[in-house]
Amino acid sequence: MDQLLRVMNFCVSSDGIGAGAGEHQSLERPFGLDRPERLFGWAGATAHWTMRTDSGGSRGLDDYFTRDFARNIGAEIMGRNKFGPQRGPWQDDEWRGWWGQEPPFRTPVFVMTHHKRPSFTLSDTTFHFVDGDPATVLAHAREAARGMDVRLGGGVTTIRQFLDAGLVDTLHVAVSPLKLGSGLRLWESPDELLDRFHLEVVPSPSGVTHHLFWRR
Amino acid sequence: MDQLLRVMNFCVSSDGIGAGAGEHQSLERPFGLDRPERLFGWAGATAHWTMRTDSGGSRGLDDYFTRDFARNIGAEIMGRNKFGPQRGPWQDDEWRGWWGQEPPFRTPVFVMTHHKRPSFTLSDTTFHFVDGDPATVLAHAREAARGMDVRLGGGVTTIRQFLDAGLVDTLHVAVSPLKLGSGLRLWESPDELLDRFHLEVVPSPSGVTHHLFWRR
Repeated sequence: MDQLLRVMNFCVSSDGIGAGAGEHQSLERPFGLDRPERLFGWAGATAHWTMRTDSGGSRGLDDYFTRDFARNIGAEIMGRNKFGPQRGPWQDDEWRGWWGQEPPFRTPVFVMTHHKRPSFTLSDTTFHFVDGDPATVLAHAREAARGMDVRLGGGVTTIRQFLDAGLVDTLHVAVSPLKLGSGLRLWESPDELLDRFHLEVVPSPSGVTHHLFWRR
Repeated sequence: MDQLLRVMNFCVSSDGIGAGAGEHQSLERPFGLDRPERLFGWAGATAHWTMRTDSGGSRGLDDYFTRDFARNIGAEIMGRNKFGPQRGPWQDDEWRGWWGQEPPFRTPVFVMTHHKRPSFTLSDTTFHFVDGDPATVLAHAREAARGMDVRLGGGVTTIRQFLDAGLVDTLHVAVSPLKLGSGLRLWESPDELLDRFHLEVVPSPSGVTHHLFWRR
């Protein structure tokens, strides 16, 4: 089977917004949103949420999505704003991401940025900083993934770049039942992708609606 | 996290029947059913169906269930009738299961039978033949699973034994929209399990209804 590029567990509002506008991001607000749990709470309630440290959590439908996070994934690609709130050249190498000493990725991670920085490793995750167009970065990530799939971690701007380049194979987007009105928008409507993707829409008992896309 | 005992991708009719009565099973009819694809077709249509050899298949909701088949599973327990159509003492050791030279399990498999037979290995799967009550067999399977979960493969009679013994942690049962009327029945109604399990009921675009149970 081919190596897929997959968007997984990406959370947006009912009006398609996945994060606040870039200028609203800060150390205290990684997503630039007030009460981000309104978008992400469904994942945090599951047994297999990547940051969970206890043995609780639900094992219903939503848990099938969080437990799929690492299965057959060999690398992640993320935009710089997912990695951190800084802009422009790196002032120093102190910032090592939002995730503490045990980042949940446990694979090579390719952070897209125009500004050079040395790679570093935290536990099982190695972060690389790469400049280049989506196809070039994907080629690096595929090689690092050694036959496994590559996760496209976001944010919104990065996903749209890869969609525009025709490089995304599957998307799982969890739509929460609230309107945000302004911010970074993944889509006006999921129907925008129907020319290129199959779509299944699956309402969850938790209130979110899972949107599952795969290439036609 | 504990080692769970999990029923996965188990298929029944809308009236709870998972196989024909035992006397209807034969070499040509492993499930003792006419047109078994009426129960199992949803799984065969997915990209991650364990027996798929091409690169096609759907990647919607149903595929999340088939792709979960091997994740964190270290052993399977099955009843003798899932392993083969013979009854009584083994006449010889020629029968090696329904699955050809590449069984999809790729772990130790514990076949429950009162009749002794030596273990054997096919590709990545080793079949052991064990006599004992459910708790004893589960203890063996847990040890073989080396920290991972154990899959309870069925059939109906085996699942009911383990349910009666209070040993099942999660169940995923796919209910197909057809009535069979007679055969081996998993339940009269899924509500029978609500005293012990949470339940989420998730209709799939394919027509089956996924029932997801986990311990209260």
